[in-house]
Amino acid sequence: MAITVEVIAIGSELLLGDVLDTNTNWLCKRITGLGGRVCRAVLVRDDVKEIATEIRGALTRGTDVVFTSGGLGPTTDDVTLVAVAEAASVPLELNPEALTLVRARYEELTAKGYVACSTLTEPRKKMARLPKGAKPLANPVGTAPGVVLNVGRTTIISLPGVPAELKGIFGSSLQPILKELFGVGVFVEKEVLIDCSDESALASVLEQVAEDNPGVYIKSLARRLGPKGKLRVTLSMAGGKRTEVEASIKKALGELKKALADAGLNIASIA
Amino acid sequence: MAITVEVIAIGSELLLGDVLDTNTNWLCKRITGLGGRVCRAVLVRDDVKEIATEIRGALTRGTDVVFTSGGLGPTTDDVTLVAVAEAASVPLELNPEALTLVRARYEELTAKGYVACSTLTEPRKKMARLPKGAKPLANPVGTAPGVVLNVGRTTIISLPGVPAELKGIFGSSLQPILKELFGVGVFVEKEVLIDCSDESALASVLEQVAEDNPGVYIKSLARRLGPKGKLRVTLSMAGGKRTEVEASIKKALGELKKALADAGLNIASIA
Repeated sequence: MAITVEVIAIGSELLLGDVLDTNTNWLCKRITGLGGRVCRAVLVRDDVKEIATEIRGALTRGTDVVFTSGGLGPTTDDVTLVAVAEAASVPLELNPEALTLVRARYEELTAKGYVACSTLTEPRKKMARLPKGAKPLANPVGTAPGVVLNVGRTTIISLPGVPAELKGIFGSSLQPILKELFGVGVFVEKEVLIDCSDESALASVLEQVAEDNPGVYIKSLARRLGPKGKLRVTLSMAGGKRTEVEASIKKALGELKKALADAGLNIASIA
Repeated sequence: MAITVEVIAIGSELLLGDVLDTNTNWLCKRITGLGGRVCRAVLVRDDVKEIATEIRGALTRGTDVVFTSGGLGPTTDDVTLVAVAEAASVPLELNPEALTLVRARYEELTAKGYVACSTLTEPRKKMARLPKGAKPLANPVGTAPGVVLNVGRTTIISLPGVPAELKGIFGSSLQPILKELFGVGVFVEKEVLIDCSDESALASVLEQVAEDNPGVYIKSLARRLGPKGKLRVTLSMAGGKRTEVEASIKKALGELKKALADAGLNIASIA
């Protein structure tokens, strides 16, 4: 069984339409590549109650890993950790390891002349106030550490909303935790391009192949209609063992090829 | 009070990270512009149970308007209307008005040589099978009509996932319904750019202004740290009357200017 994942993107600017959330897509792509299965993603405002409700929902569903993005900064509208603590029923407390990370960053930024002084003011200390039992993740790009908290069977991973910071933590301090969580999970995908501008003509073909290959996810994406139209069909599967996953994809692909030929549809390419 | 809105983007390809969901952002921007308040957005897989759960959640919360995007096409992985019907406890039935729309589109596409024939096959008819009591919305771009269904106080608006189709319906056949739902709602936003590379220095300033102006949403967005860094603060508010909303924003902006000056922070621009 694939590791189940939920993603919670936090920030009222996302729901105002002011900022396009690209973090969720970036995370989904990586998690899928690690063999994980993202079941659901949600965008919520900077509101403690709403964020906590979403996290509690994921805990209730027994989701293995919850990613949050956004809301870790120094200003009062950054409330993610308050919500994580509330959902996990633990208090927030100043985390010495996190404080060391924040201090080191401000000393570095002061030395470079980016900020006026390295004093740990209240807003700066706020970024080191983590849910009890959490572990900070060094942020190689910005000032707010990422945060990992285990709650029962669920691991909550909180990352900053600035894409460069989220990617920076994901690619460095989070790596050992990802290896532990996802192990050697694999994800295999095949893409079939079909000469056809009419998605409705594909429906019965795909239905039969999908029914006969329940483990494989089969999706058709309509492209532009037109005399030289093409339709893209993807077959994908996540799992623990590469050989098993590849064998299942191979079987489904073989059946799809045959069914397309029987229906008089031409395959333009397979990748 | 602003009209409350939830957005549900449907498609496993979104959670695989294969496709970046831009529909939610596009809808959020328009809804905000109409004076509506998007409270929450969610991305789910092509799964009847999961989609129905999200819709039921919105109905329970008494949300005024629910937008769904995706899952209206002819293939069996397009299951949005099955889920809408299930959540609303009504059956699906062939909608004569929708069938007329689908027929007209296929006749047009056949005449242009884009599809082989205009016969209403089962997959094509599927797009005209709507929840009982629903109204179809003509799709000026693709083949699947949009769908509007009223359930108690909630209006569910289902649009296709192909961005051009979603935008096409939104801008044409959906307009009369949007006018009815949102009336003359307004949204006012001011953007203040501050010469400052240290978001933590802003925290206490913003906190005070936010506390004194509870109706106004105040958000700071960190930009790149650096010797010539700038921070962007937005003040925004949605409501029913333009004069009232503008007065509230003006008051908050005046207080923000004063507080920034008191803290020795320089405003680079206001837009």
